[in-house]
Amino acid sequence: MPAATRDALSEAIAADHDQALSRLREWIALPTINAEKLNRQEGAELMQRMLLDAGFDSARIIPTDGAPGVFGRLDAGAPVTLAVYFMYDVKQFEAHEWSQPPLEGRLVDRDGKTVMIARGAINQKGPEATLLTAIRAFKATGTPLPVNIVLVAEGEEETGSENFGQITGDPEVAKALAGAVGVILPVAWQGDDGGVDIFLGAKGVAEVQLVADGATSGRGPGMEIHSSMAASVENPAWRLVKALDTLVADDGYTPAIDGWMDHVRPLSKEQVAMIEAGIRPGSEAAAKKEMMVQGWIGGEDYRTSLVRLASQPTVNIQGLVSGYMGPGGKTSLPSRAEAKIDFRLVPDMRADEVVAKLRAHLDKRGFQDIQIVPGGIYGPTETPGDAAIVDALVTTLAAADLPHTLNPRLAGSWPGYRFTDPPVSLPAVFVGIGQGGQAHAPDEWYLIESNDPKVAGIDRQALFYAEFLYALAKTKR
Amino acid sequence: MPAATRDALSEAIAADHDQALSRLREWIALPTINAEKLNRQEGAELMQRMLLDAGFDSARIIPTDGAPGVFGRLDAGAPVTLAVYFMYDVKQFEAHEWSQPPLEGRLVDRDGKTVMIARGAINQKGPEATLLTAIRAFKATGTPLPVNIVLVAEGEEETGSENFGQITGDPEVAKALAGAVGVILPVAWQGDDGGVDIFLGAKGVAEVQLVADGATSGRGPGMEIHSSMAASVENPAWRLVKALDTLVADDGYTPAIDGWMDHVRPLSKEQVAMIEAGIRPGSEAAAKKEMMVQGWIGGEDYRTSLVRLASQPTVNIQGLVSGYMGPGGKTSLPSRAEAKIDFRLVPDMRADEVVAKLRAHLDKRGFQDIQIVPGGIYGPTETPGDAAIVDALVTTLAAADLPHTLNPRLAGSWPGYRFTDPPVSLPAVFVGIGQGGQAHAPDEWYLIESNDPKVAGIDRQALFYAEFLYALAKTKR
Repeated sequence: MPAATRDALSEAIAADHDQALSRLREWIALPTINAEKLNRQEGAELMQRMLLDAGFDSARIIPTDGAPGVFGRLDAGAPVTLAVYFMYDVKQFEAHEWSQPPLEGRLVDRDGKTVMIARGAINQKGPEATLLTAIRAFKATGTPLPVNIVLVAEGEEETGSENFGQITGDPEVAKALAGAVGVILPVAWQGDDGGVDIFLGAKGVAEVQLVADGATSGRGPGMEIHSSMAASVENPAWRLVKALDTLVADDGYTPAIDGWMDHVRPLSKEQVAMIEAGIRPGSEAAAKKEMMVQGWIGGEDYRTSLVRLASQPTVNIQGLVSGYMGPGGKTSLPSRAEAKIDFRLVPDMRADEVVAKLRAHLDKRGFQDIQIVPGGIYGPTETPGDAAIVDALVTTLAAADLPHTLNPRLAGSWPGYRFTDPPVSLPAVFVGIGQGGQAHAPDEWYLIESNDPKVAGIDRQALFYAEFLYALAKTKR
Repeated sequence: MPAATRDALSEAIAADHDQALSRLREWIALPTINAEKLNRQEGAELMQRMLLDAGFDSARIIPTDGAPGVFGRLDAGAPVTLAVYFMYDVKQFEAHEWSQPPLEGRLVDRDGKTVMIARGAINQKGPEATLLTAIRAFKATGTPLPVNIVLVAEGEEETGSENFGQITGDPEVAKALAGAVGVILPVAWQGDDGGVDIFLGAKGVAEVQLVADGATSGRGPGMEIHSSMAASVENPAWRLVKALDTLVADDGYTPAIDGWMDHVRPLSKEQVAMIEAGIRPGSEAAAKKEMMVQGWIGGEDYRTSLVRLASQPTVNIQGLVSGYMGPGGKTSLPSRAEAKIDFRLVPDMRADEVVAKLRAHLDKRGFQDIQIVPGGIYGPTETPGDAAIVDALVTTLAAADLPHTLNPRLAGSWPGYRFTDPPVSLPAVFVGIGQGGQAHAPDEWYLIESNDPKVAGIDRQALFYAEFLYALAKTKR
């Protein structure tokens, strides 16, 4: 990017700083929470207005069976088109667990840095709003964008993107995606040393609830009864425990579902080497501190555990719900027990196999009475290391004098398989600098002003997106 | 009892009817809930006043490490002394789940019968208040009681009678109990045919909470983390599931704790015959309907299941609590998981062995990290079929033309082992007619006025206690 352009964009971003915060706060104040069917239409309409306001030529609301999608186009007449994925929904929250009101976007000082505390701050409104700030700066300075942008937004990410296929499958959207060099999701994941991990893929995820219900199964009581009856009446909580027990090995983590590992492709030597090269000094201690853990699963060393994190599918219990859950005890026998489960999937596991394999596994062991209530399911994603969007990201980071590492796979998940799987088959990567944390948790935060040159506040983050777009425009597809 | 005395007592009880309801309502309005440390001193003081008011010579509050006990004496100069057990505490309640305010004792019509809806109505204030009404009638009519009474009340029954041993171990109480022919607990458990089951004992119970905690165990995270980390960080919920799984056999109910069955004494042929003789036509269908069950554990027939109910110890899950428990899912990995467990104990299992055996069982399997938080523990009780109090009860029922069955053991529990175990070694039995239900549940109720001659309202219930005292006075110890 010409130095004069960079200066002009930088000035425009700085001048827009307070308005950028106001826009983000307006977005924060309207939480779309799909699990509660909260603000689905309103969230889509605000997303539409934000795109048009930022300079998109068009923004169309796409109805689905759930929360609507929004499809935005910005045609700069450039030879290269970039696809962008946005989610406009956020996770549920319990306001009383927060130190600040979760929908006000208040700024607080944290070790000399200014952060915004809000639901959606980092996941994902903050980084997304900052990308829009970058696009506004082009408009404000009369600078043509170096690439065209097609943007696909959904409002169901936090519940598993049940209907996202209806959005990417829209004929106009599908055609537009087919012309893109790749798709990005705005993030703010810098380490304290300024370093950025570039993930060449992500695990998939499948959520299910397993339910043992005395009323519907014909086993166990149809209502909570006195615990003295445990000698005569089957307890659905025991039924669930016995079923759960078969899902992982005795070590408590190795998946033991029949056929679960059939399509698990091991990491290549290059991928393992990539993980090893990405271990920075202090990163193990920082990870332990952040999660308050004293060691890694099975007593493994950090390197082994990182390889496991990238390579292995998981069977996780998110929650257990049954019977009396207050303080102390209550001599009762519950009529229902539920386990909330998620599975992380790696290539070449397929999202559409999950429920069928689980059902067959349970049935084979006599657990026909255990209900499976499926939630959202994402397949895993993979992106080639030589994709144009990866090249552009590496170039932009290097130009900004920020270190990066490559990692074969994020252990987390996003609905990127809708882009990376056929028929779209785009490369996908997370792009951004800056920081944030506590996604899904109380006091979720996003870095606004930094007192550390290695870690970017929102103005620098916005400029970084502009730099990335220029770098992408120069990259051969 | 002379007919004139019976008539006089009956008239006095009838004249006292409205006051009896008022007294019960006053008691209902002051709930002692030990789990919440609610009204412990106040409840003991009201119990004391109620005893003195009913005609007891003395009533002494006995401090304990928890809720106080109350010890009442009524010396009639009779050769026979009866011990009575009272609990003045009640179970917690959620008022919004009730159709009536739970502390007002409102009367409602139910199929032509008048019942009182209140927390404590049947468990145990109602039947206890009715026994006191009987005692008042002796005072009102100037009739000397046919037996002396020593009454031991506690305020911690619903939390496991943690400190009841401090009350029965009080020197004056212990000495008084040593002179009694047996101990009774007032109940109102008539069947719809008027029949009464006489239980010659009760199972013991032990409550524990099993806790897997990432923060304190050094395994698993010290806070809720993102579920993607399930490949690297141990999940306390899986740890708990794996530990729980070892506690019962694959059938989901047979206890599998090491040494658990060592001291389980099988029922005698006579005891099994007693159970078989007690099966009344329609009782299986009624039991299934009441609990909304379609069958008995293991597909057993009713007779086999009743024998199991009386003879087998249980390992029951009351509740499971871990991680996200709201609607749908949340891709998180919990830091803590808890199972609320109760064990029912049969002779000759001992209360003091429970925690030690459980601890050893878990430790042997490597579950040293699973915490055991013990709650209340009662040993089982047994009473000989030829005890004076059983004789008196059989005689009284027969005189009232009410059928009875003998059952070797109630599957439920009460702290009677403090009476039946050495050094006290008294027979113990539940005594009363009338009905009630929904103990521990919303809309707990107690029958006040009956439209069915087979089933007793409170006036007839009170007279029944007077009849029982006379029958007991005539029985040779």
